[in-house]
Amino acid sequence: MAGEETQVRIVIAPGGFKESLSAEEVAAAIARGVRRAVPDASITTMPLIDGGEGTARTLAAATGGRLVPHRVTGPTAAPVDAHYAILGGSGPRTAVVEMAAAAGLRLVPRDARDPGRTTTVGVGELIAHALDAGAARILVGCGDSGTSDGGAGALQALGVRLLDASGRELPRGGAALALLDRIDVSGLDSRLARIEMVVACNPFNVLCGPEGVARVYGPQKGATPAQADALDKALCRWACVLERDLGPVGVDLHGAPGTGASGGLGAGLAAIGGRLVPRFEVLLEHLDLDGVLAAADLVVTAEGAIDRQTSRGKIPAEVARRAERHGKPVLLLAGAIGPDARLVYGSGVDAYACILPRPMPMDEALAHGTEILEDGAERALRLVLLGTALTPEAEHRGPVRARTPKGA
Amino acid sequence: MAGEETQVRIVIAPGGFKESLSAEEVAAAIARGVRRAVPDASITTMPLIDGGEGTARTLAAATGGRLVPHRVTGPTAAPVDAHYAILGGSGPRTAVVEMAAAAGLRLVPRDARDPGRTTTVGVGELIAHALDAGAARILVGCGDSGTSDGGAGALQALGVRLLDASGRELPRGGAALALLDRIDVSGLDSRLARIEMVVACNPFNVLCGPEGVARVYGPQKGATPAQADALDKALCRWACVLERDLGPVGVDLHGAPGTGASGGLGAGLAAIGGRLVPRFEVLLEHLDLDGVLAAADLVVTAEGAIDRQTSRGKIPAEVARRAERHGKPVLLLAGAIGPDARLVYGSGVDAYACILPRPMPMDEALAHGTEILEDGAERALRLVLLGTALTPEAEHRGPVRARTPKGA
Repeated sequence: MAGEETQVRIVIAPGGFKESLSAEEVAAAIARGVRRAVPDASITTMPLIDGGEGTARTLAAATGGRLVPHRVTGPTAAPVDAHYAILGGSGPRTAVVEMAAAAGLRLVPRDARDPGRTTTVGVGELIAHALDAGAARILVGCGDSGTSDGGAGALQALGVRLLDASGRELPRGGAALALLDRIDVSGLDSRLARIEMVVACNPFNVLCGPEGVARVYGPQKGATPAQADALDKALCRWACVLERDLGPVGVDLHGAPGTGASGGLGAGLAAIGGRLVPRFEVLLEHLDLDGVLAAADLVVTAEGAIDRQTSRGKIPAEVARRAERHGKPVLLLAGAIGPDARLVYGSGVDAYACILPRPMPMDEALAHGTEILEDGAERALRLVLLGTALTPEAEHRGPVRARTPKGA
Repeated sequence: MAGEETQVRIVIAPGGFKESLSAEEVAAAIARGVRRAVPDASITTMPLIDGGEGTARTLAAATGGRLVPHRVTGPTAAPVDAHYAILGGSGPRTAVVEMAAAAGLRLVPRDARDPGRTTTVGVGELIAHALDAGAARILVGCGDSGTSDGGAGALQALGVRLLDASGRELPRGGAALALLDRIDVSGLDSRLARIEMVVACNPFNVLCGPEGVARVYGPQKGATPAQADALDKALCRWACVLERDLGPVGVDLHGAPGTGASGGLGAGLAAIGGRLVPRFEVLLEHLDLDGVLAAADLVVTAEGAIDRQTSRGKIPAEVARRAERHGKPVLLLAGAIGPDARLVYGSGVDAYACILPRPMPMDEALAHGTEILEDGAERALRLVLLGTALTPEAEHRGPVRARTPKGA
């Protein structure tokens, strides 16, 4: 039997664990645990990003590019040390502007979380700097935002003037858009017309209405229900005036998929020529996830917590959907399993495991995240390996009839 | 491929979870979870006992026997409603006296936990009642005891007199044995000489010395270090006087395997003719565990917490050791995984999993034990099933080289 044995090829393609571990840290910890269970496995790690925190760094690393540090106006007006990436490789010079680096929720102190006032002006400043650096293509990553200004600040930083009925410039923030009377685009940075801007969005996010960004995400950014309603109205006015004063922009700024990305930044950038693209379609083209999945025997992905959102376009669902196309089995590791976790079985995930070893409070779990993940990955792989004994190979009677094999 | 498929045969053989679920409840919850993952599996449940709580009930149920209720003197002298079993089936009439039913730790209120004073007199009362009922064989199950009297109380209940230097009868409890001068056995129940008494012990438990029962278990029964030392000396005196006054008893009462079982009950019963036997050798002869394991494709066992003791003669280690002889893969499910859990890999356990779904305090885990176990068993089985896809059956390249197959 030894002659038949070959290395098992395991692909580890996780996202980061929010407020705990980056995707790189998650992938490395899982790899160590897998190695302990299957010492001679062929392991490929591919830390994944969703447009939010870590996107610029990961894409720079994956392509042999570099990070460009740049100080910008932060979401609460205080300056922040942000960055964007210039990707390596051939093709047009591409900059990756991760909006969270300039206007992320992490940059808004808890006591300053007023989504009517925070601004994306720093995002516009990063875009302008990337233009200075000669970018021919700008990829804007949405996600983990601390703003709800519809991208108004970003447009202001790029030369657009937002005026009230008296012709005065609006103050920053989404709430002020309720007073918007007209938009003066004569000062818009002319270089934007000569480059390609692609905005990587979660397509489930739309700008206005009951499923709009103010109502869905406002509360976690600090809005009361009344503030969320007022903000929704202000963002609707923003979309109307943008469509009137900037001419037809090719998409419905109120409700097209992705217009609500990052507090409406999607809508604002779409109005000045940005193309809204489902995030994984554009982010993964730099990573060759499909090529890696095609050469796998087993795919391991991971997420901090599995919940109802997981199957609505989160990283594990995206990985599983693609792995299923290649007929590959998928294991999902998680720090916590929520009540609606079973929904991920419908996304191509075959099995999921919680990595915790014993009852413990969340604080303790977060404090020992790396070790818990490594140990949990080892245990999970040993369970998977145990299944290889349930086949005729191991002198047992027959394969387990568990499900229709994928790709059959 | 459908023609090759056969039912997978899964044996579920767990112990109970201390202070939470009985072995029957554990087995039933796991079976429900397994069924959800593998709907057409052939499932055999075999709740296991270790001599402690539940032993009499489980063996009565397994053999078609019955429980005999009997009120006895409890460990703190207050009466308790205890019971023993009369087993069904052919062969000599067998009674199962579970010491925990008359003198278990659960029967000692927390504020009354003084191991120098608690008594096994109720155990002797159960034995006497079983003799009245015509038992030709008495199987005494040790485990979960709340006493440390060396079985002195049990012997007193059966007619033995323990005297101090003034010829006065000693008060109950292990501490008083420090004053033991001589033992009068003239009143010992004469029926004991005509029956077989088998004491099911954990062979790792010895009566005296640094590894003796007073020092190892005294603290969890409420002893201070000084009390534990004094109790150890009293139990050594007990062993010396027993050996002197009851003649050669065939085993070293100070240190033979099992003499320390249930606070030294093993030593006391050995002195009046009880045969100390490693617990699973005698308990499992009524359950045909080996026959069930031989017909399994996968063995699932479980324990409340995996720790250093697990591989020293606890139920999962016993199940795994026997399953290994039959070349069967073993999965161990646990509520908590301690730092030394890896030791169980040396006992024949192939993989273990923690059943918890997310960070939570122990109280919450215990309150929802059944549901957590059922869900955890389902998730674990899905991981095992995923492994069946890692074989040539599923159009992959080769089996995983993980370990030398068992039984090879």
